[in-house]
This record gives sequence, C-alpha cells and structure tokens, in this order.
Amino acid sequence: MAAQPESDTAKVDGVRLSAVASGVRYADRLDLVLIEIPKNASVAGVFTQNAFCAAPVQIARQHLRVNTPRYFLINTGNANAGTGEAGLLDALRCCQSMADIACVKPEQILPFSTGVIGEPLPVDPILLGIPCAFSGLKEGSWFDAATGIMTTDTQPKLASKTVEISGREVAISGIAKGAGMIKPNMATMLAFVFTDLGIDQSDLNGLLQESVSQSFNRITVDGDTSTNDACMLVATGKLDNYSTFEDAERATFQQALTDVCRELAMAIIKDAEGGTKFVTVRVENGLDQQECLAVAYTIAESPLVKTALYAADPNWGRILAAVGRAGVKDFDLSALTIYLGDVCLVAAGELAPDYTEARGQAQMDEDEINISIDLGRGSHAETVWTSDLSLDYVRINADYRT
Amino acid sequence: MAAQPESDTAKVDGVRLSAVASGVRYADRLDLVLIEIPKNASVAGVFTQNAFCAAPVQIARQHLRVNTPRYFLINTGNANAGTGEAGLLDALRCCQSMADIACVKPEQILPFSTGVIGEPLPVDPILLGIPCAFSGLKEGSWFDAATGIMTTDTQPKLASKTVEISGREVAISGIAKGAGMIKPNMATMLAFVFTDLGIDQSDLNGLLQESVSQSFNRITVDGDTSTNDACMLVATGKLDNYSTFEDAERATFQQALTDVCRELAMAIIKDAEGGTKFVTVRVENGLDQQECLAVAYTIAESPLVKTALYAADPNWGRILAAVGRAGVKDFDLSALTIYLGDVCLVAAGELAPDYTEARGQAQMDEDEINISIDLGRGSHAETVWTSDLSLDYVRINADYRT
Repeated sequence: MAAQPESDTAKVDGVRLSAVASGVRYADRLDLVLIEIPKNASVAGVFTQNAFCAAPVQIARQHLRVNTPRYFLINTGNANAGTGEAGLLDALRCCQSMADIACVKPEQILPFSTGVIGEPLPVDPILLGIPCAFSGLKEGSWFDAATGIMTTDTQPKLASKTVEISGREVAISGIAKGAGMIKPNMATMLAFVFTDLGIDQSDLNGLLQESVSQSFNRITVDGDTSTNDACMLVATGKLDNYSTFEDAERATFQQALTDVCRELAMAIIKDAEGGTKFVTVRVENGLDQQECLAVAYTIAESPLVKTALYAADPNWGRILAAVGRAGVKDFDLSALTIYLGDVCLVAAGELAPDYTEARGQAQMDEDEINISIDLGRGSHAETVWTSDLSLDYVRINADYRT
Repeated sequence: MAAQPESDTAKVDGVRLSAVASGVRYADRLDLVLIEIPKNASVAGVFTQNAFCAAPVQIARQHLRVNTPRYFLINTGNANAGTGEAGLLDALRCCQSMADIACVKPEQILPFSTGVIGEPLPVDPILLGIPCAFSGLKEGSWFDAATGIMTTDTQPKLASKTVEISGREVAISGIAKGAGMIKPNMATMLAFVFTDLGIDQSDLNGLLQESVSQSFNRITVDGDTSTNDACMLVATGKLDNYSTFEDAERATFQQALTDVCRELAMAIIKDAEGGTKFVTVRVENGLDQQECLAVAYTIAESPLVKTALYAADPNWGRILAAVGRAGVKDFDLSALTIYLGDVCLVAAGELAPDYTEARGQAQMDEDEINISIDLGRGSHAETVWTSDLSLDYVRINADYRT
C-alpha cells in the first residue's frame, strides 16, 4: 500500500508532530518522534496484554492514570523491554528531560519504544534528540511521524477520515507501525489516532476499545504478541466539545473511528514481514464469538495454510484440517460450507460437486484472498486478517534481532 | 537419526509384516504395508481428535469396537480424507478384499491411509497390491514396513526395547511415520507398537493412553493436527498372558512402552520438515499441567522463536515475549527463571547478571537445544519437543500437496 500524501491526512487542530534522527541504533534514520497534544484534550490508551510488558508501557500506563498527557515521546531501534528496574529509570529520565524543556510535569509525558528486546535503552542519543524534536514540532507532519516510528515496516502507515456530526466536519487521523511479532491482544504495535472532537474521558475509553476490537485485535502475522504494543486515542476538543454523544452521533463517530483503525490495521497486514498475500478469513454462523475467532485464528495461523497461500496452491485439505482442529464442540460437519473467494470448496461437509482445481487456482492466483467458513450452527460472525508464510518471512526473522 | 538395522528391532512373536510398491501415487515406491496380528491378541488404538477425521480412521475406530483385528492395511500417497461417503466405501472395499484373501471378517481389517487430502483413494492399485503384500508377510520385516509408511519422512522410524517382567524377556517394538502437519492430539501420524506379552483389553487402552500422553502428545512441528493420526498397540500374548499386572510389573511395562513411544516421537521431530535443530522445552514448577503445557507450546510454536533457533541467534527476548503471552494468570515475574542449556538467561524475571551473548551463542550453536522455564509457583512440570522453522520448511510445504 502506498502511503497517503501529506495533504490526504486530515489536519487535527492543535496536534503538532516532529521526527528526528537521533541515532538510537542506526545513523541517519528518523527514530525519535514527538507528538504534542493540546491542553484539555482527553486521551485513551490500550496496551499489550503480554505479561512482560516493556518499561515504557508500564510508565505510560501509570502516567495516563495520574495526569492528562501533553506529549507522546516515541523511539524506535530499542524496545526497552526485558530491561528491569534500569529500563524503568531510563524511560523516566527521558520523560523528565522532555518535561523540563516543555515546562510540563514528567507525568504528562507518555513514552513508547519499539525495536530490539533486552538491550539497555541508549538514553544519551534520545536526550540529545529531544530539543531538536521539540523545536521541530509542526501541525500536519503526519508523514514524518509515520516514517519515524517504522522498524521492519517498508511503508509508513497513515489513515484519515472526516465525518459529519451535527453539521460539523470532524477529523480522525492516525498513524501506526508494525510488520512482524503481530498478534495484538487489546492493542497493536504502536498506533496513535487523533480527533478534533472533544469527548469525555470515560466515553473515549469505550470508543477506543470497541474500534480496536474490530481492527487491531483482528489481525495476525505470526501469532506472536509484542511486549510493547500500544494504541492511543486523543480527542483534542478543538472543534466541538461533546460531554455526551447522542446515540446516532456516537454510532457515526464509532464507525468512522473503526474505519480509521481498520485502515491502519490493514496497512500492517499489507506490510507483513515477507507477506505476498493479503488474506481475509471470515467465519459466519457460529454459536458464539469465541468459536468464530478460534476457527478464524486456527486457519490464519496455520503454517501449512500459510505456506499453501504463499505457493498459490488451492490446497483446501489444509484449510479443512485447520477447521477440524479448531476445537469446535459437537461439530456437525454436514452443516459446514467453505468458500475460497466466490468458489465453493466444501458444501454440507464434503467437497463441493462443482469444484474444480482450475476454479480454485484462479482464486489463489489473486493477491487478495478471501476464505469464508459458514459453520451453519448459530448467528455470530468474526473476521480476521492475515498474511502468508514466505521464504522472506524466515529470512527476515532469521536475520533481524527483535 | 539413522534407522536401526533389522537385527536391532526385537522380534515380537506372531507379528508378520510386508511392504509392496502398489503405485498409489508414485511408481517403484513402497506404499502398501500389511501387518498380521496373531489370533487372540489384544489391540488398543488412539486416533486423531481432528473433527475431519479421515474415512480410514472412522472405519478403523468402528472395526476396533466390534471385533479383534487380524490385519492392519496401510497405504501412503493418499489420505482418503475429505472424501465423504465415497471415501468410506473405498476403504471398506479394501478391507473386504483383504478379508477375502485372508479368510477373516472384513471387520478384522483396520485400514490406515496417509498422504494427500481430498483426492479419491486409488482403490485399484491397492486391490492389486494386496495379494502380493499377503504372500510377502514375514516375521521381522520391520524395516520394510517402516519404510513403506513414509511420506515426506527422510528416514524410516523404528524403536525397540526388551524389558524383564517376572523373569521373562518381554519385547516391545514399533514403527512410526511423520515429519509435518505434526501436533498430534491423542495420537500421531501413524505409529504401530507391538509386544509379545498378553494384556487385557481394558488394561491395554490405559497403558497406551498413558504412554502416548508422554510421547506423541508432547511433540509439535507446526501446530497442525492431521486428519489421519493413529497410534495402535498390539499385545500378542505369545510370550505370557497377563490377565492383570502386579503394580510393579505394570510400572515396568508402562515405562518401557513410554520409552519406545518416546523414541519414535523423537525420531519424528528429528525428521521434522526442514528441521535443523532438535529442541526440548521444559516448563517446571507450574500451578497445573495446563499452564505448563500452555507455556511450553507457546514457545515451541512461536514462529519468531523458531526462526531464531534456525538462525542460531540467542534471541532471548523472543522466548521472554512468548512466555509473556502464554496466558499465565497472576504471573509473578519475580519468581521466573529461564535457562538456555545450562546458561541462565533470566533470573527473578530479569536478565541474569552473569549472562553474556557469547555464552548464549555457544548454546544456540548446538544441534540439540534445551530451553527450561521455571515458573516458580507450583509443582507441575511438562516437556514438549519441537524443531526450528527453516527456509526448507517453507520450501517443502509450498511444494508439497498435503
């Protein structure tokens, strides 16, 4: 996916951004991003559920509880994860330095890190980079910020939408990063979304959680959950201040927010490490959400399904074997239907009579693949998005030190 | 692992085997194996838990319920899975043909198939091969039989042990196949184990289940469970007939049986598709078996851990991230210890003070890797065995039609 030009990302009044090359890990690479949030904005966040959450995640979560944030300080090249007490102190030093320069409290800085796990954070280059990042803050620098948070990403990831609420054009704009170690659990590997609407803190949390559950929490590259995942939503209130939404307005905003989050999540899958296919797995008519997700993720994370996708092999036996081991209780196979694109593979639990290898092959030759499973036993549905498992995925991860 | 020469496989009185090249899928390849079981033997079996169990699995399970088996009829090249009603009829035709030649009932034939999923079983070559297989039956043809059940395996897999029970030398000998689509759930991709002891049917089932749970059910190559897995245990009673074991004898036999099953399971991991490392993951001092297995399998099936193993990269951050997402409830990280071989990576939840990259690298350069996790919160322990994720795994599975 080509990144959107700067002008396509809707301006969110009061949000200023900058990115500098501080040399955390590589020279001449944008690796320190600063985002300024206006006073009185409300901020919501969801963070990784990994028990080993990184030092910056612990601090960001704590700071978010005690004060309204004014700055997000994000470095790449080092995750500051698995670094113990020293890692916490390093992250706090960065917050303190930023707070001094901006004349705010250290608790108003939320730190985020991404990169190699288990090495001490190089604090000095970050401290040297902060004044430069501060003086470079500018409204509209979305592309630089999206570029500055990349690690193994090959493309900056931006998404933006305007939506009319009570006759006013409301902007929602966001950036994200992520390409591997992707199975977010309540959050993804760094996403930052902004709106110029004012929204109550309590309401903001619910809105974010709902949109994340339908976007970042429905993608998987390799089933591996990062120690540093976070997704933040900022409502600046520069446009209008909504203490409470009306139902219809809330639904409109929720949908637009989900659209932006989903576009960012899709950009992560399209940039999946070594990925050559964009794969949508939809499971319909399950008894409950849990069983739909179990079937969808079993398919989406099966190495055998993923290598068949890479080979463009319409190897439906592997899809069927994955469905069969997903743990569906009292599975009545005679109600099962499986589609590859618009080609029926399995009907009533058996190979569809009109299926031909040529029809399956035509679907598998596409860059975007749709796998649909109809369990025929309930009314729930879930969709997850994934990539294939290629030689390049192995090459990248045998070379790169997470 | 080199296959054992014929003479190392202990003879089990009354068991006769043969293998012929019937041409199910390839010419001049042993692909049809027949195993004769003496009258009055007892037979136990465990089968795949995949909801899409193949036609031969359904028939074998049913035949085992109604009669004492006299023959195992095993073909490779075609799994007869996902083949619906026609697949059941095809398997039954093979049983009928075999029964006619051997003058037994069709229910005394247990069919097994392994190979491509979703294509009709080529019945004709099998029917033509059966008389030839029958006339070739011979005691001691373990190596031919182990060779004849191979698919993507590069080595035949045999294991054998003799153990003294009440002053008599008891033989336990078995063969297995499997290299990919390996995460057995109550069984593995075809294993056949024989003893010359006589054991009550009810006792035999329990002995097999216990040994399988400590061997085949503790290995994973790719987390994918086959539609055709089965493990059979035959007690011929030719040596001595035990209607009931004494406790000590039972324990001796159980341990020897587990040893044989484990040797076969290890041979499958050593022959894992594209595997370059043999990896043991041990989780100790967990609250219960379930949490030990969750942590062990999360590590053993993490694509990022597996690519690091392939690269011989002591990338402990990925192990730590996998432990952290395994779903351990109320995880007190300060009690956690992680070892790579005899090198401590993580002590009290943080990087061990005396860890060095050089010490980690020395461990990762070995062909056999031991990862030990001490959860420090209970008294349960579990071990699983796995392989790495290599470029060849992707090549093999992008080329091979399961």
